Amino acid sequence: MRPDLTPAALRRAIRSGEFTGNTSGLAPGYVQCNLTILPAEWAGDFLRFCQANPRPCPLLAVSATAGDTALPLLGDIDIRSDVPSYRVFHDGVCSDEVTDITGLWREDLVTFALGCSFSFEEALLADGLEVRNVSEGVNVPMYRTDIDCAAAGPFHGKMVVSMRPFKARDAIRAVQICTRFPQVHGAPIHLGDPALIGIESLARPDYGDAVTVAKDELPVFWACGVTPQVALEAARPPFAITHSPGHMLVSDLRNSQLAIL
Amino acid sequence: MRPDLTPAALRRAIRSGEFTGNTSGLAPGYVQCNLTILPAEWAGDFLRFCQANPRPCPLLAVSATAGDTALPLLGDIDIRSDVPSYRVFHDGVCSDEVTDITGLWREDLVTFALGCSFSFEEALLADGLEVRNVSEGVNVPMYRTDIDCAAAGPFHGKMVVSMRPFKARDAIRAVQICTRFPQVHGAPIHLGDPALIGIESLARPDYGDAVTVAKDELPVFWACGVTPQVALEAARPPFAITHSPGHMLVSDLRNSQLAIL
Repeated sequence: MRPDLTPAALRRAIRSGEFTGNTSGLAPGYVQCNLTILPAEWAGDFLRFCQANPRPCPLLAVSATAGDTALPLLGDIDIRSDVPSYRVFHDGVCSDEVTDITGLWREDLVTFALGCSFSFEEALLADGLEVRNVSEGVNVPMYRTDIDCAAAGPFHGKMVVSMRPFKARDAIRAVQICTRFPQVHGAPIHLGDPALIGIESLARPDYGDAVTVAKDELPVFWACGVTPQVALEAARPPFAITHSPGHMLVSDLRNSQLAIL
Repeated sequence: MRPDLTPAALRRAIRSGEFTGNTSGLAPGYVQCNLTILPAEWAGDFLRFCQANPRPCPLLAVSATAGDTALPLLGDIDIRSDVPSYRVFHDGVCSDEVTDITGLWREDLVTFALGCSFSFEEALLADGLEVRNVSEGVNVPMYRTDIDCAAAGPFHGKMVVSMRPFKARDAIRAVQICTRFPQVHGAPIHLGDPALIGIESLARPDYGDAVTVAKDELPVFWACGVTPQVALEAARPPFAITHSPGHMLVSDLRNSQLAIL
């Protein structure tokens, strides 16, 4: 896929089934979103979970009414077809991976779009920082921590974090840069000793791939969008849909529009 | 001295000789300044040194002309009498400590007032963070690093840093808070392993007092106002005057006025 397609052109290619791949690096400069779709009966609790845990679950948009397939805040979107790959869950267990959910759509479904780390990684790269998972060409390493999320109804669980190593001066700069973007996870939640947040080994991430951490670097940890997936698995709603990892909803919002200053 | 005196009332007590003590904790909410006074012949290079090294040498005010004893930007000040204690230097060596420099004043002297860590410590405390040197009632520990300052004429030397330990989440918060205050040293310049900036032992500071660092804390390092004193000693001007450590020039500026956002 040409990396310079506009978000609208990229979504057209996705909608037609022409593109079903990972969206990392595509439509640079534009916000990509994590996706959770739930029956209305479960949506209120999930909304409260996001509001109570804004660092891992920064809510960018919610469908206006149950059954509504549009997200006008994010662009001209049909949520049933505009994501390259979806995961279908029954009772909190992923049962299928599909490229279109038109056939699965129900009038009681509510859509949540959450901010994603691609946006702040772009801001870090634009400042000249090296983002290790990008330079090593792998998925960012992610870890389950011992940090409890605030529960909301059946939604609960530990926070998942992503990790990027930096020299101290770049870690300080990363705090400054990411503080400007609270809607895409914001400032790091931890840096330094992984054991202090319950991570046993940086070499064995729970999701994604391990990256090199040099002796003169600190691991820096951000709240991660996998957290709501873990809460979803814990809540075990009878039916739910999410994006497949790395296969995001590409929006018309510019990353720079999310900067609070 | 009553801690709630206004800056003007405190300066009157200092000017009259009634108060000659440490200004830490006095006139809370107001900016206190490091002071360097030099012959005009040396002032241009020192000004360039400050401009090239804004983190350790954040310049708040300079006298309008040589011989001028006022600093109207900072209040109704007579720089010859409004600091509780001064150090007098000849050829870069401190030869005397006095409470008034009226008898030493010369028409070629230029005054520099630099920001001081008291301002950002107040902002950290106001956010609920524990500042260890404050809670332990000692002077902040300061260390010579292996970081070279940018030289300007005869002024050169290594950067001196102050250190305050924090848990990682508070260290991240401290970066956010201090970033708002570039004129009082701004964001930390390092955190974590002291050896990476040439510090051999946190237990043996080069200036000030050691503080407790818990196992779950990171040492956080800020550029320090002792740096220009070290550069002054290296440059060896025939004559110079500074404040005595902890005996600062108290200004009418509010700390909050220095926040860039």
